[in-house]
Amino acid sequence: MSVDNLKLYESSGSPNSRRVRIFLAEKGICVARVPVDLGVKEQFSDAYARINPRRVVPTLVLEDGTAIGEVPAIFRYLEEAYPNTPLLGTTAKDKALVVMWERRMELEGFAAVMETVRNKVPGLKGRAIAGAHDYDQIPAIVDRGRQRILDFYADLEARLATEPFVAGDRFSAADITALVTIDFATRALELGIPDGNDATRLWYDKVAARSSAAA
Amino acid sequence: MSVDNLKLYESSGSPNSRRVRIFLAEKGICVARVPVDLGVKEQFSDAYARINPRRVVPTLVLEDGTAIGEVPAIFRYLEEAYPNTPLLGTTAKDKALVVMWERRMELEGFAAVMETVRNKVPGLKGRAIAGAHDYDQIPAIVDRGRQRILDFYADLEARLATEPFVAGDRFSAADITALVTIDFATRALELGIPDGNDATRLWYDKVAARSSAAA
Repeated sequence: MSVDNLKLYESSGSPNSRRVRIFLAEKGICVARVPVDLGVKEQFSDAYARINPRRVVPTLVLEDGTAIGEVPAIFRYLEEAYPNTPLLGTTAKDKALVVMWERRMELEGFAAVMETVRNKVPGLKGRAIAGAHDYDQIPAIVDRGRQRILDFYADLEARLATEPFVAGDRFSAADITALVTIDFATRALELGIPDGNDATRLWYDKVAARSSAAA
Repeated sequence: MSVDNLKLYESSGSPNSRRVRIFLAEKGICVARVPVDLGVKEQFSDAYARINPRRVVPTLVLEDGTAIGEVPAIFRYLEEAYPNTPLLGTTAKDKALVVMWERRMELEGFAAVMETVRNKVPGLKGRAIAGAHDYDQIPAIVDRGRQRILDFYADLEARLATEPFVAGDRFSAADITALVTIDFATRALELGIPDGNDATRLWYDKVAARSSAAA
């Protein structure tokens, strides 16, 4: 379904943008995409700061000009506006469990990868935290980050040893965030799924084979 | 309204527990509270780890035994199950905006206060990140944290200079998280609202005067 009243400001190389692209693909929704060129720091332009004062991608802009930043907020808008193929749960209990698991994937996985990369890569000097303000890199966070990612993998393996998907019986936004986290850790830090984490590997192969994963 | 099929595991001194207590008070819901004594590290007991493997409070336990951790997940359950007095928005757009603003208050405010405290306080040595795993303190995070909190206050002032509440026209969960953040920063780090932040002060006095703030 093509939706002509939404615009997604995003970048092809941005893992947070990919979370939203996969979510849209699962729902079968096409929206207009406006590329923001992170390579030339377009996210810091005055034009983009007016859309998203945190100067990060992605941002979803509604027909009335309302700009929605933050991936879980974009997920929420899309789920409410396009409830078919639910990705955030259907009952009160399931909705809460998806929030909980998606958040754990993000705070313990995605954010750990992100802070490791941001505190390590020379090109991100002075930009150790995404957002409106500049912060210096802290090298000790890089060492800690690698340990956090290993701990994330261990916890994910324990979870997937007993459940087919991260939030339980059904594919949800929690799987999207976990998949993007693993691909990001593999690409940026060469920290892929550890050998022996068989439940995670089985789940990964299943989720990465969905057509949405190409988004 | 007294609800007899929910149990909230929480601690009186825990800022995350307070976020949920205020949310419940705004909705006029009373649930059974089970105190978890952080002073004797009861959150690390085997009994509590079975309820919440991240070993943090609060946790909301449903009648069927389902345990919901993470404050935004508990908010979501309560809003879905008890929709009166909405605190997470009513339209698709408002729901997304509340997620966005509540999250900004948490990631830029609450989390900055929390990481500063956890990396500073001697009693939290080896526990610099809440959760199932132990991480050493990193002193450089404390200095950065104080700057992050000042940046949070500046951004909040800019927002409240044009809007009556954090997420816009109406009181929401975003105000709850902002209020708890400020009280936490004031109590734990003596970093209260800076002089001259008049819009924030006006908003604070209004929100702190609500009966829910005593929760």
